[in-house]
Amino acid sequence: MSAATKTADQLSIERVVFFTDAVIAIAITLLVLEIKVPNLHGIGVNDAQLRAALIEQIPKLIGFAISFVVIGMFWQGHNRMFRHVTHYTPALLLLNLYFLMFICFLPFPTGLFSEYPNLQTSFLLYGGTLLVAGLLQWNLWRYLASAKLLVPTLDATAIRWIGLRTLVVPASALLAILVSFWNLPLAGLTFGSIPIWIRLINWRSRKLNVPF
Amino acid sequence: MSAATKTADQLSIERVVFFTDAVIAIAITLLVLEIKVPNLHGIGVNDAQLRAALIEQIPKLIGFAISFVVIGMFWQGHNRMFRHVTHYTPALLLLNLYFLMFICFLPFPTGLFSEYPNLQTSFLLYGGTLLVAGLLQWNLWRYLASAKLLVPTLDATAIRWIGLRTLVVPASALLAILVSFWNLPLAGLTFGSIPIWIRLINWRSRKLNVPF
Amino acid sequence: MSAATKTADQLSIERVVFFTDAVIAIAITLLVLEIKVPNLHGIGVNDAQLRAALIEQIPKLIGFAISFVVIGMFWQGHNRMFRHVTHYTPALLLLNLYFLMFICFLPFPTGLFSEYPNLQTSFLLYGGTLLVAGLLQWNLWRYLASAKLLVPTLDATAIRWIGLRTLVVPASALLAILVSFWNLPLAGLTFGSIPIWIRLINWRSRKLNVPF
Amino acid sequence: MSAATKTADQLSIERVVFFTDAVIAIAITLLVLEIKVPNLHGIGVNDAQLRAALIEQIPKLIGFAISFVVIGMFWQGHNRMFRHVTHYTPALLLLNLYFLMFICFLPFPTGLFSEYPNLQTSFLLYGGTLLVAGLLQWNLWRYLASAKLLVPTLDATAIRWIGLRTLVVPASALLAILVSFWNLPLAGLTFGSIPIWIRLINWRSRKLNVPF
Repeated sequence: MSAATKTADQLSIERVVFFTDAVIAIAITLLVLEIKVPNLHGIGVNDAQLRAALIEQIPKLIGFAISFVVIGMFWQGHNRMFRHVTHYTPALLLLNLYFLMFICFLPFPTGLFSEYPNLQTSFLLYGGTLLVAGLLQWNLWRYLASAKLLVPTLDATAIRWIGLRTLVVPASALLAILVSFWNLPLAGLTFGSIPIWIRLINWRSRKLNVPF
Repeated sequence: MSAATKTADQLSIERVVFFTDAVIAIAITLLVLEIKVPNLHGIGVNDAQLRAALIEQIPKLIGFAISFVVIGMFWQGHNRMFRHVTHYTPALLLLNLYFLMFICFLPFPTGLFSEYPNLQTSFLLYGGTLLVAGLLQWNLWRYLASAKLLVPTLDATAIRWIGLRTLVVPASALLAILVSFWNLPLAGLTFGSIPIWIRLINWRSRKLNVPF
Repeated sequence: MSAATKTADQLSIERVVFFTDAVIAIAITLLVLEIKVPNLHGIGVNDAQLRAALIEQIPKLIGFAISFVVIGMFWQGHNRMFRHVTHYTPALLLLNLYFLMFICFLPFPTGLFSEYPNLQTSFLLYGGTLLVAGLLQWNLWRYLASAKLLVPTLDATAIRWIGLRTLVVPASALLAILVSFWNLPLAGLTFGSIPIWIRLINWRSRKLNVPF
Repeated sequence: MSAATKTADQLSIERVVFFTDAVIAIAITLLVLEIKVPNLHGIGVNDAQLRAALIEQIPKLIGFAISFVVIGMFWQGHNRMFRHVTHYTPALLLLNLYFLMFICFLPFPTGLFSEYPNLQTSFLLYGGTLLVAGLLQWNLWRYLASAKLLVPTLDATAIRWIGLRTLVVPASALLAILVSFWNLPLAGLTFGSIPIWIRLINWRSRKLNVPF
């Protein structure tokens, strides 16, 4: 086969990647719809009133920014995984679809959490969605490796470390869920440890020559 | 013609595939907008109240999950069909557009069904939309085969079995519609037989060497 | 230059085509958001009440279907035009963006028209948007031809007839607007003549060997 | 490496470009959702009443058009930058994601501004979002140049002038913010100077042979 001819497998992988990108792009953009323009009745609304109404929206803005970064990280992880995929199976498509279902669902817990930021229920639904989405992404990676759909030059060490990085978000979500039963504000802060874990894994991956 | 040069036909097929992927990705992502954040007035909302409000939303969550999987199956079917398309006609684009119209419409019956799950009217609209969308997808496949737009290596057996798999969703929807006139909860359960039919067709397709 | 290497021009044309497809896919999918699930208060809502509420929505369903087909036709026209584009200029991008602005705007007049179907004001806004969108698409085609961005094998006859087909929607919209000052229901029916005009142009185009 | 084989870098750049296009396409299309169909209660709504309600919406229509053009300019700038990118790094993806966050956020300040057009608070949020989005886009371009990810044939003059054009929107936004503390209506008009600056930069770029 000539280098220039795309195989049916390559075309199907491209379509899965494309569909995933579109779905994640839409989910990440829908997040802003949860931030509503404040509806201040009365003719003489002034700047002080509008500013006060916007300050009340700050939890929503934080929710938007956090979910944007989290979805961005899931997309980055998908990108990192699919750089190495060379073969296609219908199971790949299905496992990818399960992962996408929880990404698409994320705008709902994001909206819930920014509406009720001080209730554990909304925290559990938010953290639980991240946990399941992350485990499904990790499961997809494990399938890609075990079904031999990856480029043969990718060795076992690289496969393990790419998998480990995929686990950072769900592991942090699990930790946050557990802490939330003891102390809710502290649980939120555990997410702040994500960049530290990623830096550690990146540093170790570079030393082991894992391709990004 | 060199293998590396894309023909105008290939470009148009790619664009139809791309447009379809984008439309399906948006329809599948819009589903979550039907699940609204519960609006609990009062200052001292507690976890028990929010949990109760979320439990009321469970039918909507089920509706979201079912419609997500169903749209995902339509997309998988489209992917399976277009792996074999090599030629383009304006009629292909038009038949594909009719199919997409009913996919785009699906968020409405999904919302209706999750709002009124125990009324036959919403069940009929939901099942009817699936029935029409499935028949239009099957019609598209029949056109692709009869107009000789498929790769010549695809034999009559493969064409028939790929067509049969496309009929699983509309056939189940038709059965569910008929049963709903007799017993509504049972009608919902008939959709549960879809995975069984697909497994049977997949098993038979593998034996007949039908490409997936 | 080897046939396999994409030029920067080809990449930019692909990106414009891609962006257009995404925008049109979103606009066509947003149409369904104008059809709201009826909000029937009261515990004992029955099938007859829901059916009555849905029947009231029929104008919205018709509005959805018409706008879906109209946007689909604009997309088909864009596809027909860009099959022949080989060169890129920043002006191409800009003229395409102006066209897209009116496509993106279309969900608003569609919603207005399905809410107030018997008022000339909503008819004028709907028809006017189609008129401007169509003229901007035709203007884009004229620019592509005059700036020599099309494949040289496309002759003057083909350019004229592809342009003529682009004018069917805006010409029908203009006629409908004029008729609406005399008789509103009749004005709506003039849109029904679109398929006839397209059939005539297609028939003549085939005789003149215009590529589709 | 053969010209026909895509490198993993090229594939990742394509995916970043694709994701960006999808996100910008969605953000630009969501703008129309801020324009709501007027809800005129009463059976005998007439044309004069609807026309009056639509005239009240004119600030929203202007907000839609301005934000559409501004987002279109950001997309055009992204297109101009990525025509020259040949290498990929994970940092590129991250810096691009930060830029996209503020593009995705734009529908909110647009809605706020069209709801409260005569308050400085909404003007500041709108202008501030444009300022940050523009600076992040410029920062991305500086990174691409300093990390040597651009095609080597692009000289320092071209890099400087492409960067300068990226700064037109944030510089105008900064000027508008400063003027708004002195005179609000005048501040809005400073945006009108954008086309003049762009024309000047385009004219100078052509003389310096900067590729568009």
